[in-house]
Amino acid sequence: MNMNEIKIFSPATVANVACGFDVLGFCLDSVGDEMVIRKVDKKGVKITKIEGFDLPFESQLNVAGVSALAMYDAVKPDFGFEIEIHKNIKPGSGIGSSAASAVGSVFGMNELLGRPFSKTELTQFAIKGEALASKCEHADNLAPAVFGGFTLVKSLSPLEILQIPSPPNLYATIIYPQIEIKTSESRAILPKEVKLQDAITQWANFGSLIHSLHTDNYELMQKSLHDVIIEPYRSKLIPHYYEVKNEALNAGALGSGISGSGPSVFSLCEGIKAANNVRDAIEKVYSKTGIEFDIYVSRINTEGIKVL
Amino acid sequence: MNMNEIKIFSPATVANVACGFDVLGFCLDSVGDEMVIRKVDKKGVKITKIEGFDLPFESQLNVAGVSALAMYDAVKPDFGFEIEIHKNIKPGSGIGSSAASAVGSVFGMNELLGRPFSKTELTQFAIKGEALASKCEHADNLAPAVFGGFTLVKSLSPLEILQIPSPPNLYATIIYPQIEIKTSESRAILPKEVKLQDAITQWANFGSLIHSLHTDNYELMQKSLHDVIIEPYRSKLIPHYYEVKNEALNAGALGSGISGSGPSVFSLCEGIKAANNVRDAIEKVYSKTGIEFDIYVSRINTEGIKVL
Repeated sequence: MNMNEIKIFSPATVANVACGFDVLGFCLDSVGDEMVIRKVDKKGVKITKIEGFDLPFESQLNVAGVSALAMYDAVKPDFGFEIEIHKNIKPGSGIGSSAASAVGSVFGMNELLGRPFSKTELTQFAIKGEALASKCEHADNLAPAVFGGFTLVKSLSPLEILQIPSPPNLYATIIYPQIEIKTSESRAILPKEVKLQDAITQWANFGSLIHSLHTDNYELMQKSLHDVIIEPYRSKLIPHYYEVKNEALNAGALGSGISGSGPSVFSLCEGIKAANNVRDAIEKVYSKTGIEFDIYVSRINTEGIKVL
Repeated sequence: MNMNEIKIFSPATVANVACGFDVLGFCLDSVGDEMVIRKVDKKGVKITKIEGFDLPFESQLNVAGVSALAMYDAVKPDFGFEIEIHKNIKPGSGIGSSAASAVGSVFGMNELLGRPFSKTELTQFAIKGEALASKCEHADNLAPAVFGGFTLVKSLSPLEILQIPSPPNLYATIIYPQIEIKTSESRAILPKEVKLQDAITQWANFGSLIHSLHTDNYELMQKSLHDVIIEPYRSKLIPHYYEVKNEALNAGALGSGISGSGPSVFSLCEGIKAANNVRDAIEKVYSKTGIEFDIYVSRINTEGIKVL
């Protein structure tokens, strides 16, 4: 590997985080994609290798390609880039697979270009790639991948991302039941209007969650990780959702919720031991269902995407 | 004044605070009631003096009396209390007049009893008094009066109050236009349901506001102090509301909003100079309207209710 080539780790992420629907996310470190970005003489952006999952090679049809092209068109360099994608995060699993791809190419290119762009600008380019996958612009998986830790996407236009601190001993357990949830369905199932009283409960919990992250207050985190708006709808799309959640809470999770639009389910835990207990409890539930699943335990990755 | 008598200052408060509708509040120090609480041989709770405004002397019909009775019934002492109320906060002004009364009696009694009750317990008693005035139980004016600074009422049942830090140089300008808004009207005007998208905007702003208070970030506070849910409705009840708000923002306010259910309007400002400028700008607007008004500048009172 020479100085014109860079290998990176682009992490999986959890978006929504219970009461933080559409705005909060956090970054994982035990699962993520690897990508190689290479500076080449030939102009343009070319995807030269894709491993792991079957995804399109045409840059305009590939999430990593689209975000790369957005940056490329902004820079207009007299050279080009090649992208290799070693995909570990299954598309559609609900832990930011497309976000990892979208962020990976622009992060790597930015490194090879001498870092002309800020993290917020990288996210802005990545939004273009993410939009290819999700048909709308959002950044709640992108921001934690780029910044690490917990991020709050305060607004999309202008893009404003806040880094929220988190206690050092916070871990996540993620179960990915290998079923497919159509994005269109997970969106269509949401109500257009919600009760004012529920909205108030949600923002009380959300403000409280932000406060708990600032104050390393696990007990308060536990009391705050509730979603009274989205969960009642989307949980229907995830088999055995409440069983998983109840067992996770019984096993010591601070809170559980749908990761992104599912089907993955996250649990936040104080310490690795609790996270492993929660993993065992969830495994027990899901091994009876006949549904294939993956399960991960990860500390909160405060670094985010990085050069390997 | 002997050790069986205590004089206290019970501060005015601002509830709702833009995006923090129904859960956030902060405490003022330039305006508040004075109360004297006296331990007497004769059992029971008796209101012996009310100055400033015409309010009922019967304990069961007086906010301060009702909260006092709630504590008295819990303690069942073999003596009684007398309460004098020197009211400066006009009932119905929207800056926590009934909350100041409700909190004052129980805070004073708690001092004379040797402080058996926590601040949260004091708030719990005061909720009973506040309910007499507002016909429903809430604590968003009570909590900042008891705890000082900014408070988030995370839940009412069980009562959970979070103290949110705030930057030292934060000031509030409050205008109280002397009109009457009927509580029933200010409640009836609110929608039962709100757009999910607006609710998301509101909790993004609210989470961001909590983050800005933790990080002394005035710029972010300015970007967060927006209310997309309640203000469009309740602003109609306050004459010249948007004119006041626009002039306050032009004069350097970080944000402005309806205090409680109005008619008072608060502006938060970085520094006393900005707060005075905002006061001058608002005064200019309102002196043309022919409506009587009071206007206050106050630092954020981080101490809350206190013995004088």
